[in-house]
Amino acid sequence: MPELRKDPVIGRWVIISTERGHKPSDFTNRVEPKKAEASCPFCAGREGATPPEVLAHRANGPANSAGWTVRVVPNKFPALMVEGDLARRGEGLYDRMNGVGAHEVIIETPDHVPDFADLPEERIAEVLAAFRARLLDLRNDKRLRYGLVFKNHGEAAGASLEHTHAQLIATPILPKAVQEEIEGARAYYALKERCVFCDMVEQETAEDNGRRVVRATANYAAIVPFAARFPFECWILPRRHLPVFEAGGPEQDRELAGVLRDVLQRLNAALDMPPYNLVIHTSPYRDIDHEYYHWHIEIMPKLTKIAGFEWGSGFYINPTPPEEAAAYLREVR
Amino acid sequence: MPELRKDPVIGRWVIISTERGHKPSDFTNRVEPKKAEASCPFCAGREGATPPEVLAHRANGPANSAGWTVRVVPNKFPALMVEGDLARRGEGLYDRMNGVGAHEVIIETPDHVPDFADLPEERIAEVLAAFRARLLDLRNDKRLRYGLVFKNHGEAAGASLEHTHAQLIATPILPKAVQEEIEGARAYYALKERCVFCDMVEQETAEDNGRRVVRATANYAAIVPFAARFPFECWILPRRHLPVFEAGGPEQDRELAGVLRDVLQRLNAALDMPPYNLVIHTSPYRDIDHEYYHWHIEIMPKLTKIAGFEWGSGFYINPTPPEEAAAYLREVR
Repeated sequence: MPELRKDPVIGRWVIISTERGHKPSDFTNRVEPKKAEASCPFCAGREGATPPEVLAHRANGPANSAGWTVRVVPNKFPALMVEGDLARRGEGLYDRMNGVGAHEVIIETPDHVPDFADLPEERIAEVLAAFRARLLDLRNDKRLRYGLVFKNHGEAAGASLEHTHAQLIATPILPKAVQEEIEGARAYYALKERCVFCDMVEQETAEDNGRRVVRATANYAAIVPFAARFPFECWILPRRHLPVFEAGGPEQDRELAGVLRDVLQRLNAALDMPPYNLVIHTSPYRDIDHEYYHWHIEIMPKLTKIAGFEWGSGFYINPTPPEEAAAYLREVR
Repeated sequence: MPELRKDPVIGRWVIISTERGHKPSDFTNRVEPKKAEASCPFCAGREGATPPEVLAHRANGPANSAGWTVRVVPNKFPALMVEGDLARRGEGLYDRMNGVGAHEVIIETPDHVPDFADLPEERIAEVLAAFRARLLDLRNDKRLRYGLVFKNHGEAAGASLEHTHAQLIATPILPKAVQEEIEGARAYYALKERCVFCDMVEQETAEDNGRRVVRATANYAAIVPFAARFPFECWILPRRHLPVFEAGGPEQDRELAGVLRDVLQRLNAALDMPPYNLVIHTSPYRDIDHEYYHWHIEIMPKLTKIAGFEWGSGFYINPTPPEEAAAYLREVR
């Protein structure tokens, strides 16, 4: 019998379709490394192929030269533009505004490494520090309401360049996906005087539970969420109540880098190098100090197709029960 | 300068990314017809390969034999099961229930035709009548709250069999995507005492506008919505206020079949046989008579990839301005 499960934060229902039950080997969508492209604009030595950097970790040497370990540049084909004002205006019953915002690329290594999970832990920590620095800097732009850091890994997940990188898009509107989480978390808090994410982490990591835990450390829990939309979806949450990802420091970066690398390597091992999307959900820029929101990372392997039913209903059909996915991921290493 | 546009019903913002501006020839995702499969379970004469039919248009002859023109069967691999009760239950802070519902397949022709748009108009009208009949029948099941008819065309859009068919999934929960439309439409009605979809159709088809109209007939308007998520997305709406798709009759089927076939053929011509998803949004089963909801069809060509930004934010980036998409589609035939 399939089961309907409700996400405790936003109330989205998913269908856990046990009849179709998919184990890891039923999914084949391997990310094949290409040959290192002679023309990769993200490799060290080709700094001129990108717009000038906005941040770089570099021991010495001039800006936009080699010698960096992490480098952040504006996206050459930005979805939103930094210049201009919002210029809100109507057209009959419709609303529009200028596409003002920021769109940056975080180049995670100077070498042509296609897989983020292949970087050493301390280099991943450095990348996380760069995410935080850019989120903090863009917060100063009063036009912006939200900064979303995300990664697309593999062509099937929307990556157009294989050299490992992340992106940051900062928007003048609070994104709907975040707004739904905030509204849900606020409603839960109004009812219970507790953070729904804290309750979730506590229930998942309780000694007599753990069925959906992939990895737990002193400060982080990696779980397959109860109402996961996608097979082998994983979330990483701090175990303490922390609303703002970018408020962390080097300690957060170090421990989180270890957990993140471990989870990505487990996904690689279980699913044979799957494409995936990763997003960091942190608090909105103009509403940072509250008791109900809790930052987290969502990792969504790209294994199934989103089709008419999903588009038309907002339901998702997940063929792999979260408990089974978590067991595979726990046991794979 | 890119532009942010807000959907007037649900308030979802999209980025219309004029910088990336994509004309039809920039998209290549052609649905290639396979050889007619000797084993296609939907072809006439193979009625035994599907579960027994729940509806068939057949002049004479016994059930589950050849001689039909449209045939509806339960899905052999259903996402939800017809038998059982809802059995709602909790698990700590989580909610779940049995996956009770209906999952049917509407086989749209006895011949191995891969493209719905190749059927003659009167056969498409017959298919629309079958959609209505199944939606009306499932309404009698008191456990069900909503019936969603959808089509996946092409493997890239999630179709696993090429013989043209649609699906109907009836759910015991009002789907989130429909609930959002209903809440948005209700809020608009509370403010204006008018249906937001009626206002949209009126504004789009006004004599001094028409920039986003693909095709208009006496009773239907096919438009590219102002805040389209996807390039060349098209909606078909009745021009009069009609909340319930399945309340229509043969007249609706005939005129709508002509408009639907025309729009699909225009998409085929402009985009070289694109994969697409199609959904019919009608009123919920238990809330049918109101002044604020308005049935419509959404057609979403599958041309771009949904990646981390879309998953993390709920924003969509549409590289083709709706006005340009509509102009291409108007002029292509």
